Amino acid sequence: MSTIIERGYGVGDVISLLWFKRSLPRYCTQFIEICVMLCADHGPCVSGAHNSIVTARAGKDLVSSLVSGLLTIGPRFGGAIDDAARYFKDAYDRGLMPYEFVEGMKKKGIRVPGIGHRIKSRDNRDKRVQLLQKYAHAHFPSVKYMEYAVQVETYTLSKANNLVMNVDGAIGSLFLDLLSGSGMFSKQEIDEIIEIGYLNGLFVLARSIGLIGHTFDQKRLKQPLYRHPWEDVLYTK
Amino acid sequence: MSTIIERGYGVGDVISLLWFKRSLPRYCTQFIEICVMLCADHGPCVSGAHNSIVTARAGKDLVSSLVSGLLTIGPRFGGAIDDAARYFKDAYDRGLMPYEFVEGMKKKGIRVPGIGHRIKSRDNRDKRVQLLQKYAHAHFPSVKYMEYAVQVETYTLSKANNLVMNVDGAIGSLFLDLLSGSGMFSKQEIDEIIEIGYLNGLFVLARSIGLIGHTFDQKRLKQPLYRHPWEDVLYTK
Amino acid sequence: MSTIIERGYGVGDVISLLWFKRSLPRYCTQFIEICVMLCADHGPCVSGAHNSIVTARAGKDLVSSLVSGLLTIGPRFGGAIDDAARYFKDAYDRGLMPYEFVEGMKKKGIRVPGIGHRIKSRDNRDKRVQLLQKYAHAHFPSVKYMEYAVQVETYTLSKANNLVMNVDGAIGSLFLDLLSGSGMFSKQEIDEIIEIGYLNGLFVLARSIGLIGHTFDQKRLKQPLYRHPWEDVLYTK
Amino acid sequence: MSTIIERGYGVGDVISLLWFKRSLPRYCTQFIEICVMLCADHGPCVSGAHNSIVTARAGKDLVSSLVSGLLTIGPRFGGAIDDAARYFKDAYDRGLMPYEFVEGMKKKGIRVPGIGHRIKSRDNRDKRVQLLQKYAHAHFPSVKYMEYAVQVETYTLSKANNLVMNVDGAIGSLFLDLLSGSGMFSKQEIDEIIEIGYLNGLFVLARSIGLIGHTFDQKRLKQPLYRHPWEDVLYTK
Repeated sequence: MSTIIERGYGVGDVISLLWFKRSLPRYCTQFIEICVMLCADHGPCVSGAHNSIVTARAGKDLVSSLVSGLLTIGPRFGGAIDDAARYFKDAYDRGLMPYEFVEGMKKKGIRVPGIGHRIKSRDNRDKRVQLLQKYAHAHFPSVKYMEYAVQVETYTLSKANNLVMNVDGAIGSLFLDLLSGSGMFSKQEIDEIIEIGYLNGLFVLARSIGLIGHTFDQKRLKQPLYRHPWEDVLYTK
Repeated sequence: MSTIIERGYGVGDVISLLWFKRSLPRYCTQFIEICVMLCADHGPCVSGAHNSIVTARAGKDLVSSLVSGLLTIGPRFGGAIDDAARYFKDAYDRGLMPYEFVEGMKKKGIRVPGIGHRIKSRDNRDKRVQLLQKYAHAHFPSVKYMEYAVQVETYTLSKANNLVMNVDGAIGSLFLDLLSGSGMFSKQEIDEIIEIGYLNGLFVLARSIGLIGHTFDQKRLKQPLYRHPWEDVLYTK
Repeated sequence: MSTIIERGYGVGDVISLLWFKRSLPRYCTQFIEICVMLCADHGPCVSGAHNSIVTARAGKDLVSSLVSGLLTIGPRFGGAIDDAARYFKDAYDRGLMPYEFVEGMKKKGIRVPGIGHRIKSRDNRDKRVQLLQKYAHAHFPSVKYMEYAVQVETYTLSKANNLVMNVDGAIGSLFLDLLSGSGMFSKQEIDEIIEIGYLNGLFVLARSIGLIGHTFDQKRLKQPLYRHPWEDVLYTK
Repeated sequence: MSTIIERGYGVGDVISLLWFKRSLPRYCTQFIEICVMLCADHGPCVSGAHNSIVTARAGKDLVSSLVSGLLTIGPRFGGAIDDAARYFKDAYDRGLMPYEFVEGMKKKGIRVPGIGHRIKSRDNRDKRVQLLQKYAHAHFPSVKYMEYAVQVETYTLSKANNLVMNVDGAIGSLFLDLLSGSGMFSKQEIDEIIEIGYLNGLFVLARSIGLIGHTFDQKRLKQPLYRHPWEDVLYTK
């Protein structure tokens, strides 16, 4: 433990040791830290934050509040990072041309994960994606999966203006580059990591920071029991 | 297990065996079943139902959805039954006159749990309370705690019209009568049961039925990801 | 609510109303209650009970302890009832002969859910299965799915002595008979109920009784913090 | 978000912004990161890890496994850091002499939180405590709470050789120094932070790294359903 602090290790290095059971180069563990920071919060309106807030307002303890929010993380909330990594990896490794990949997904009725944004577009890119790409270009030995994702984006942008690469797509594809470019994982190990869903773990850990923050907010503000307005139910149900 | 079915045992009998480690008379286990039925649901707007619904709409499995709702149960949501039992027991056992009890609570700045309703009043009693009282009068050997709660209600009604006994107060006081009237528990055992909070367990079990129902509703209706409206946050924070 | 008690409704009727949104005949709701009783507990060594016990011994509240145990319920613990219903329904509806069904599963490398027991065998049947069958024969208008399951069992017993129908298989197949025999569900509704996994909900609700009981046990016994023995880890990892 | 990365912010800075709603100096946020690293894991035998492992072995998803472990964190597992901060703050602010504080606690029958170790002793100090102290001496403007804790330790060591300051005591007292020494919190804000239990949040976040790691381990090793040995129950119950 003392060596960790003496060598100037960061939180990313501890994640590396406990999850991957090896000491990854600093450019990798710093990338992990950047991902944690980028995913730490997204305001009080998303599913996870909302549940944590409702639980905190019911007077429950920190762990119950956090956990109630974490339980919303899955296929629809947070899960796109893992899916992006899985699909991009599969498409790239099978040598699919970007248009083959996109059209193949379309035929199966699956939206390409990691592509598309409600507000951002070709002329108004997501700054976080650009930051991640810039970091990877400067530090990663190879960004082949990321470049493949960019080619996919080029094709999807030819179809609609807002089909840009989003943060999920950037983290998903760059994580593949981290794993394969570091030379520290066998092909089988990489497959296992993607299959088990390590990136979901990264999102869960990151978002915990935000959920704990929302819980503390409610407790500081001494908010009373939440009760959803009846009018809303009459519309949605 | 076969004896349970052969003897016509019900869910209340199984609760009796697994929680109290003894076979209570049928009038007791039926009372437990009535409590479970009365607490099973309270619509989609309360904290627990809301969290379960949000989690189900995030595409998560049944257990995650249920659990996310259960975690809101505590001091402010569901907890009044246990508190009612604790305070009524303490006041009765110490021989406090109803006005001494109520005024003593007032001095400590604690609302009397089990008393007060937002809508019901002296002339518009809660039917569920009346049902529980009727059942107990017909079947319980003694309803001394309940009668004490009624005396407390008489005093509080002299102060405000809506300070009626509510369901929490009825269940809380009648459960004390169940424990002491059955003659199957020592004084120390009763204290332990009240201290540990068995009635919270009864509420948790009962409300699970409703939370699971809300989860199934969302899945059947194929509801999409919930997102809390921004306008609401601007008001509440 | 008052009608529920006046008509002598039980817990099964409330489940029926809140989950299925209709008032099922009493023989159906009583069957639901029997299932709840049969699944309420299975001792302190199974995953769910163990987690609840560890959490209670860490000094945590009832809800946290219960929830920690519930979270283990899924594909390997409790999930066989839903799987049995799904596979038996699919096989029966497609008109597969029992040997076709069993051999087809074998080819796919899937164990037939609802069949097989570690201790019970042809000459030492599970009493709970016999009780459920007896109840259904006496009260259900049709037990066609159950009879199909029995035919499957006859075939599997010809292969190995302990490939008997277990409780999961009995509940799974009889629930299909309940749904289709009651005449109160459309074909599409039945498919939805099986797909969503209502039987998992029944197991979750039932087992909550046991998990709450284990939590109360620990609190009554004032058990200290649990620490898993190191020696065990050295063997299993 | 881009400023965060451009300025070389770390995970501790994001925690600072989302929990404390202000940008603390780098020596503070780095201290937060060191705490996260020190508390990230403690092997597979503690309550939290054990529950996560059991849930993962039941085939459940990452979030369920993590959450099942987190729910054990509370008064007996992880809670000593908050308690240490609370008691040390109260004793120091009231001007109690170390022996008055320790003897007062003794009279109330409360162990001094943050003091005492099963293995470490006067001549075999905990390296992590020494590292934290060294870091604080080098970077903190004031370590008055820590120095008070050291005086308490001097007194307790005069009573028994293993009553040394442990990691909980070091983090608890140094966090008080961080809050009061930074000059960025009012006295009321500090009281609120200690009362709400921010340090519990830090432990929860940190330990999540370890719990996620244990979950990944089980999934990688494809461990089967856990079943606690019967012999053990016969002894403990």
